[in-house]
Amino acid sequence: MSVTSATQPLINTLKQPSSEAWVKQAIANLNIILLDHSHCERKAAGVALNLMFRYPSNTKLVRMLTAIAREELEHFELVNQWLERRGIPLGPLAAPPYGAGMNAQIRRNEPERLLDSLLVSGLIEARSHERLGLLAAGCPDPELAQFYRGLMASEARHFGVYWLLADTYFERSLVTNRLEELAIVESELLATLHPEPRIHS
Amino acid sequence: MSVTSATQPLINTLKQPSSEAWVKQAIANLNIILLDHSHCERKAAGVALNLMFRYPSNTKLVRMLTAIAREELEHFELVNQWLERRGIPLGPLAAPPYGAGMNAQIRRNEPERLLDSLLVSGLIEARSHERLGLLAAGCPDPELAQFYRGLMASEARHFGVYWLLADTYFERSLVTNRLEELAIVESELLATLHPEPRIHS
Repeated sequence: MSVTSATQPLINTLKQPSSEAWVKQAIANLNIILLDHSHCERKAAGVALNLMFRYPSNTKLVRMLTAIAREELEHFELVNQWLERRGIPLGPLAAPPYGAGMNAQIRRNEPERLLDSLLVSGLIEARSHERLGLLAAGCPDPELAQFYRGLMASEARHFGVYWLLADTYFERSLVTNRLEELAIVESELLATLHPEPRIHS
Repeated sequence: MSVTSATQPLINTLKQPSSEAWVKQAIANLNIILLDHSHCERKAAGVALNLMFRYPSNTKLVRMLTAIAREELEHFELVNQWLERRGIPLGPLAAPPYGAGMNAQIRRNEPERLLDSLLVSGLIEARSHERLGLLAAGCPDPELAQFYRGLMASEARHFGVYWLLADTYFERSLVTNRLEELAIVESELLATLHPEPRIHS
């Protein structure tokens, strides 16, 4: 897979950059951000696995999402090592409205459901890529900053995979138009800072 | 983790060995068995992930099941390589009644739900261990037989992990007694050969 060409659309995908307020909130609450990040990686693995369950005949999708699910679980383990190092116990954390808001955009009938599922996952990866980059830039702990930098490339690659899968199963113009619509909603969902610090607050 | 001691109970766990009829059915339908095996590995990853979602504060469970989920996904990829090699397309396959029958044994209230979930998963791994061993012994393709032999150890180890987790969160006598009850049901579910060839037919 040519990652370079697949990740090309990432640059212009997000309609609005994250606010300075989010960066301040996140950097001031790095322990909660780490715990939320752990949940994000596990959820991302779950989403990939669910898509594999839902489309068991789509060989390319199954193969590429197996690789993504494995990688998300690897990152989940890495984030959990950071939690352990900082003495943060594993535990539940209320999700911000972002995920539910994005899922609400997924149309219920096929083939729209598949297209929307892929693009919503892709957009979340694109936003994660941007935000991990901001954490890497603003994080006072150089080792943690390095960790965030290391994960950024994966998030971009995952966006690329979801985009490529959408482009495999749907016409390019359909993908581009729907991605545009969803990206507008994605930025709107983040326009108001959620009071609880989260990766997607 | 001491795998040896954890897997000790495996030897006596299954109440009845698989029938000769199952072996004949499976060996005569290796392509369907391979496709079903692919689904089994993906489902096993899904079950581990779901338990991680349901008990996010149980650190030991989360850690051990992350490792299991990763390994199941790796096996899923390996089985899918066998499917590709044999020209078998990925696709859905009706599940035999075994899985639903085992899940029906899981009590709905905590903490019984956790205990039963762990032991049901453990028993399914123990049965998979036995059956992959039978496939390894009876399979006419020596390379495929070797593949099955290679996976057997993991299935035994996974049984050990589920047993160890049950033993971590519950009293030993409770674990032993409930495992005994569930093992009886497990063998009963397989007493009548399902007409469709499956790993758990």
